Amino acid sequence: MSVPQSQFVYERRIAFAETDMAGIVHFSNYYRLMEEAEHAYFRSLDLSIMHRREDGVIVGWPRVNTHCQYLAPARYEDIIQVYVDVERLGVKSITWSMAIYRGETKLAQGRMKTACCLCRADHTLESIPIASPYADKLQESPYLGQSEPVTG
Amino acid sequence: MSVPQSQFVYERRIAFAETDMAGIVHFSNYYRLMEEAEHAYFRSLDLSIMHRREDGVIVGWPRVNTHCQYLAPARYEDIIQVYVDVERLGVKSITWSMAIYRGETKLAQGRMKTACCLCRADHTLESIPIASPYADKLQESPYLGQSEPVTG
Amino acid sequence: MSVPQSQFVYERRIAFAETDMAGIVHFSNYYRLMEEAEHAYFRSLDLSIMHRREDGVIVGWPRVNTHCQYLAPARYEDIIQVYVDVERLGVKSITWSMAIYRGETKLAQGRMKTACCLCRADHTLESIPIASPYADKLQESPYLGQSEPVTG
Amino acid sequence: MSVPQSQFVYERRIAFAETDMAGIVHFSNYYRLMEEAEHAYFRSLDLSIMHRREDGVIVGWPRVNTHCQYLAPARYEDIIQVYVDVERLGVKSITWSMAIYRGETKLAQGRMKTACCLCRADHTLESIPIASPYADKLQESPYLGQSEPVTG
Repeated sequence: MSVPQSQFVYERRIAFAETDMAGIVHFSNYYRLMEEAEHAYFRSLDLSIMHRREDGVIVGWPRVNTHCQYLAPARYEDIIQVYVDVERLGVKSITWSMAIYRGETKLAQGRMKTACCLCRADHTLESIPIASPYADKLQESPYLGQSEPVTG
Repeated sequence: MSVPQSQFVYERRIAFAETDMAGIVHFSNYYRLMEEAEHAYFRSLDLSIMHRREDGVIVGWPRVNTHCQYLAPARYEDIIQVYVDVERLGVKSITWSMAIYRGETKLAQGRMKTACCLCRADHTLESIPIASPYADKLQESPYLGQSEPVTG
Repeated sequence: MSVPQSQFVYERRIAFAETDMAGIVHFSNYYRLMEEAEHAYFRSLDLSIMHRREDGVIVGWPRVNTHCQYLAPARYEDIIQVYVDVERLGVKSITWSMAIYRGETKLAQGRMKTACCLCRADHTLESIPIASPYADKLQESPYLGQSEPVTG
Repeated sequence: MSVPQSQFVYERRIAFAETDMAGIVHFSNYYRLMEEAEHAYFRSLDLSIMHRREDGVIVGWPRVNTHCQYLAPARYEDIIQVYVDVERLGVKSITWSMAIYRGETKLAQGRMKTACCLCRADHTLESIPIASPYADKLQESPYLGQSEPVTG
């Protein structure tokens, strides 16, 4: 089989406005695909990327770093799949592995590290240990092995 | 002379990511150009599109309706000008006229109606009469005449 | 029932990147929703927005004008519906009516006029009468009546 | 002095539409800033990111991989600077270092690897050695030292 096993798969069609004058999806839009996949995975676990605690403070997940290796272009109307895996579940951060395919063709391999943070109303952030409900529901993927290098 | 007189002119270069696979600027991005021009005009008057009153309430300008007539395509690296005019200064709203040019070539004619509103923390809105500092600094343009139809 | 009848309905969820700092979907993104709905309708009729004729020339549909009236904000994770109707099928152009809802709440009413054009490799355009396969499959909607005003 | 020396600096103001509901610039838009800076540097050298050779073939620079480390958020109306350096000039590719600042505050450190390619009309790509005019005008930056780590 030539598609990966993963903790979650997100699928959608590429829109016209996501292309650029080179006729392919603009490279920055791969990151939006990854984010949509991340959020869809959270929804599938009944989690939100913004959690309001009982004391009113918001817990969120700003980006620490992002990476993408481009293997083949995505085009208008392509139906693409994003294979989502937790590569590393740290004390205060998650590192996501995001493999983007069109059917059996791999288009890109992405990675995003996000930190669990208190998000204050003044837009300042404080990094905190990952707590409930996130800690209860997220776990490192069993599917990422040596056969699938994550970065380029 | 073949460029319009106006209350303000905003100029910038078109970026690669604003184009689509047809090789031209995506039609939705003309609205972003208009908004940038509107905000630059506000800045030139020492106004902000979000004004925090002394009582802490935020006054903002959500859109009521927007319109654009497309006359010629804008392309990558074009330097475009947005000619900004207040077409109508109502009691509670502004109607902007936005003429987009590339040098002497008219590319588009836009219009945006925005309402002066109290923007509450829960994202609900209440329409209010335009007050200071906006009312002191904005006025209807003397430059919009019969020779320059605003809509298509 | 409080949702409209229409020729086609397009539905999807709002992504995080479509919001702005006001906490709602940026007004320019309503036009991208309308375009996605238009293209989905074309696909449902086995039509494409870019048709390559047997002689190699491409027939496409650039925008003539676009309009949107904003009634209520769309937010992150909302599932929205775009009700698509051909308001007017002209000799050389189509005028689309696009009503955007979130369930039974109307969020926006849009309209887009597009022209049938020959799109040459040098990105110049020539307006032509709507021909096969478009003329065979598109027709004016029977659902747009006086009770549903199209513009604001 | 706390701003870097670099081969080129690109500066512009953050637009409203670049923010998201967290009140800050969406992380994907940092890549668009880097691309704009890259293109502005090319223009400053009288180069284009798309070069049509005398035989009509187009030479372009698709992305191989991209990376960004986020240090502090950019906000609406911020004036940001992108410090552009050629980190590595390979036989067939360039690796760019892109340091994003707001005045003396470092906001992000990016890197983009792009390959010199023949871009055919059918959108397929063929990697080629970097040739004139690019090879004549680009060189590795003397400014990237050990004191400024490039990745996070």
